[in-house]
Amino acid sequence: MTTSSTPQEALRVIPLGGLGDIGRNMMLYEIDNQAIAVDCGLMFPDDEHLGVDIIIPDFSYLREDPSRLQALFITHGHEDHIGAAAFLLREFPVPVFCTKLTRGLLQVKLRDHNLQDKVEVRVVEPGQTINIGPFGVEFFSVSHSIPDSAGMIIHTPHGPVVHTGDFKIDHTPVMGQHTDLTRLAEIGRDGALLLCADSTYAEVEGYTPSEQRVAERIDAAIGKADGRVIMTTFASLISRVQMVLDAAVKYDKRVFVTGRSMVNNVQMARDLGYLTAPDQVLMSIREMRDHPTNRTIVICTGSQGEPNAALTRIAQGSHQHVNIQDGDTVILSSNPVPGNEKSVSRNINLLFEAGANVIYNRIDDVHVRGHAAREELKIIHRIVRPKNFVPIHGEYRHLALHSQLAIQLGLEPAHTFVLEDGDVLEVTADDADIIDEVPSNYIYVDGLGVGDIDHIVLRDRAHLATDGMFVIVAAVDRHTQKLTGPPEVMSHGFIGLDDEDEIFEGARQIVLKMLGADEKSVNWRELHENLKDEIARYLYNQTHRRPLVLPVMLEV
Amino acid sequence: MTTSSTPQEALRVIPLGGLGDIGRNMMLYEIDNQAIAVDCGLMFPDDEHLGVDIIIPDFSYLREDPSRLQALFITHGHEDHIGAAAFLLREFPVPVFCTKLTRGLLQVKLRDHNLQDKVEVRVVEPGQTINIGPFGVEFFSVSHSIPDSAGMIIHTPHGPVVHTGDFKIDHTPVMGQHTDLTRLAEIGRDGALLLCADSTYAEVEGYTPSEQRVAERIDAAIGKADGRVIMTTFASLISRVQMVLDAAVKYDKRVFVTGRSMVNNVQMARDLGYLTAPDQVLMSIREMRDHPTNRTIVICTGSQGEPNAALTRIAQGSHQHVNIQDGDTVILSSNPVPGNEKSVSRNINLLFEAGANVIYNRIDDVHVRGHAAREELKIIHRIVRPKNFVPIHGEYRHLALHSQLAIQLGLEPAHTFVLEDGDVLEVTADDADIIDEVPSNYIYVDGLGVGDIDHIVLRDRAHLATDGMFVIVAAVDRHTQKLTGPPEVMSHGFIGLDDEDEIFEGARQIVLKMLGADEKSVNWRELHENLKDEIARYLYNQTHRRPLVLPVMLEV
Repeated sequence: MTTSSTPQEALRVIPLGGLGDIGRNMMLYEIDNQAIAVDCGLMFPDDEHLGVDIIIPDFSYLREDPSRLQALFITHGHEDHIGAAAFLLREFPVPVFCTKLTRGLLQVKLRDHNLQDKVEVRVVEPGQTINIGPFGVEFFSVSHSIPDSAGMIIHTPHGPVVHTGDFKIDHTPVMGQHTDLTRLAEIGRDGALLLCADSTYAEVEGYTPSEQRVAERIDAAIGKADGRVIMTTFASLISRVQMVLDAAVKYDKRVFVTGRSMVNNVQMARDLGYLTAPDQVLMSIREMRDHPTNRTIVICTGSQGEPNAALTRIAQGSHQHVNIQDGDTVILSSNPVPGNEKSVSRNINLLFEAGANVIYNRIDDVHVRGHAAREELKIIHRIVRPKNFVPIHGEYRHLALHSQLAIQLGLEPAHTFVLEDGDVLEVTADDADIIDEVPSNYIYVDGLGVGDIDHIVLRDRAHLATDGMFVIVAAVDRHTQKLTGPPEVMSHGFIGLDDEDEIFEGARQIVLKMLGADEKSVNWRELHENLKDEIARYLYNQTHRRPLVLPVMLEV
Repeated sequence: MTTSSTPQEALRVIPLGGLGDIGRNMMLYEIDNQAIAVDCGLMFPDDEHLGVDIIIPDFSYLREDPSRLQALFITHGHEDHIGAAAFLLREFPVPVFCTKLTRGLLQVKLRDHNLQDKVEVRVVEPGQTINIGPFGVEFFSVSHSIPDSAGMIIHTPHGPVVHTGDFKIDHTPVMGQHTDLTRLAEIGRDGALLLCADSTYAEVEGYTPSEQRVAERIDAAIGKADGRVIMTTFASLISRVQMVLDAAVKYDKRVFVTGRSMVNNVQMARDLGYLTAPDQVLMSIREMRDHPTNRTIVICTGSQGEPNAALTRIAQGSHQHVNIQDGDTVILSSNPVPGNEKSVSRNINLLFEAGANVIYNRIDDVHVRGHAAREELKIIHRIVRPKNFVPIHGEYRHLALHSQLAIQLGLEPAHTFVLEDGDVLEVTADDADIIDEVPSNYIYVDGLGVGDIDHIVLRDRAHLATDGMFVIVAAVDRHTQKLTGPPEVMSHGFIGLDDEDEIFEGARQIVLKMLGADEKSVNWRELHENLKDEIARYLYNQTHRRPLVLPVMLEV
């Protein structure tokens, strides 16, 4: 036995984000108050998070003892895995370990936060092991929808932990990176202590198709296009850009890139050697106008229907360089992230309306997801042979289905843990159990504010969004307690102009009746709540709407 | 030749809703100023239609000549086909023709609008023809996800028009209703003048599976459940309720219904003979508590994650009668309507979290859609053999793909019309062309208001939703033009309580500086806009948020 099972020395596994929701991935591994973090991602807001820019993990637990966190390890460069790293690092400037492309993407963020000189980011190659306190963190390569993705084998005194990060098993990946089943099988020979594996696709039977299938369909679409081809994909999906470059070379076409993040990522990926193309293939979007349409390919941002992205502007006819013309083929090599379905559909509709032939994932295999489906998950479970299992990355239903799968494969239910963010799982070679809970709230970032938006602010925004606001202002003489004149009324988002006058006059009459029409003085402070209720009732009776009513009384 | 092609006597086809968006279906057929309408549906609001209850078609064109509309024909009882009928009929009380179940559903709406005695609703059987002016409207049965669905063959002097309504081709429908291919083939023998066909599923290759497949999977799930089964579906999907009743009889279980629209629809469907079950199978939800769990089935509303529907309350643990317990199986026999994906996912996650085993369309065939896929559409085109084609029901991309399909099947592109709402298509036996356009705006219903919400109100609501509001009120002496005291400041939805004081004080200082700190009098009217800009700039600098700023100055 290599372990002692006193609680102080057990391995503690603490998800601070990424369980039960998509995004905001962050996992702590801790022994004897020495912790390492794997990933620190952001989550994009839902409809109910009105006005919120992003949502990040809750670092309260780390603040309890600022010396606790020793290092940050990052699996890959997607926003849901690196997007909150700068917020963590500006408070806890620990060393960061990741692969080369991930470092390129992280450094852009560090510069935005003026942290480039304050944080050390070290490149790690798959197969390399970084020793931090009681941990030896060994990187292994995985296939995913961004190059240089890694999983981690975290060697601990209790045995090895396999943390997959996002992955799939692709036997014919387009940019050559396989999930390292050989190394995982070596680890699994004696059984891993714990497997933490990607659950995003645990609903889906079978296998995720290979990127090779996408390459074939994109090649075919570009090959047969008589007019221009305009393709969008996630800016980080470098392999799709490579497919387009390959097809451009094959069919003697030229590629024009537009959209800030696409331009930046293509540049960065070329500089780091992740994109290869003869120099003359990539051209500036400004040169596009004079280029023959049947030799023109545009790669652009906007695969999620983002309001100001290139494809959205193209669809709306407001892009500076690209206007849809007859004969254009538009390819959306992407799928809508949950919540973006409507805005993506809107773009597709507008593009068809403008006369383009649009090819997208519902009608052709121009996209495959980057996550393992059920048969791939089974392979990982079989070869890693974990004693304990924690499904990670996914909404609660994905985690639950993944844990059911693990149990079907023979794992004891008592060793399968569907954790929630903040749960503290304690693991030794002998035992595993949830023993505690730490704070893991949604931390909202809105403008400069981090964490100042709470449920009251969001509730008010939801109220204002539904029925608008109604403000009524009156001045009361402090001596006579009488109104000094008729009240002022304003509304926004409540009612159309045509009906305003009548409603406003009705509200004024209520104030006059309650506060001063009969010339007797009143204590308006006592009447304030009554007045609010009376006006709200009047407005509801007239309109069946409930705006936020704000009576303001000034004593003058 | 049976026709003259003077424009006055041509057939005019005018979609007032339902093209380019899902919902709000309404089609006018008109000859010589005599018009009939087919369907009058509502559309549910998108994210950008903040606070809007429903969206209905624009009746402006009918208002131009109130004698124009002769009758309303309704294909089936779904909201997107009947939901705006009461708004039409209260203004144009024309006779309505529909099948029996559709009448049952329509009459509920007429009662809500106090129209039950003012509008005549006549039941039509498939095969029957109603003559109105130059039109003979013949109903034919179709398979769809609600019983008693009909399409219409509209006989005109120029030839017959086939208007499918929503349909699929199901050779083993659960409640016995086939799409009447025989009658359509008779019409197609000499070729129809025009086909207007459902496009909702024109993206999808192959065939929509039969309801029989769903019946098998629901039967299997109910048969093997050791605990309670809780199933939700669309309240109008009577055939799914019948499947549950059949399984209940087979496995000797009892069915408890909860959720207002489900209770109402089940009652109505039983009264009209669309649901059959021995009396003791259906029991009141109040009797459920004492019933053995392995003999209990609950049918409830909430398949779309609606905030107050039964399944949502069950998922949140706030339902009066049903709390999830270990061993419960929950079946979602439905799919999320576009826009509802997130709220449906949230319910599924909560149900898993509460310990239920959840079965839904992504992991089992417990739902199939009610619309024809591409192979079914091809059959309709082949047997109806139309001279002209208008794709209906669907977003623009569905219409575009359906028209591409028609052209692949051999129709002349010049006889295929992807119309938009408001387009006027003129058709004779010799010719067809878009010749005009009539108003077809979105008409927003919000509370009691119909059409008073405009883009300004919606823009204000969006602004308030994102960053909230900031009100600053000051009183100015009308003689001295000086402030009578410090300004009052309020905000909602802008910032958290902790940061309010500092920001409020900063804003007050700006007002004092601009209006009165130096004791010299100013013309505050001139300063009003400047003040608004100054405060907005200050707030943005402090927070990077842009609330709606409302400075109010009272002269006293």
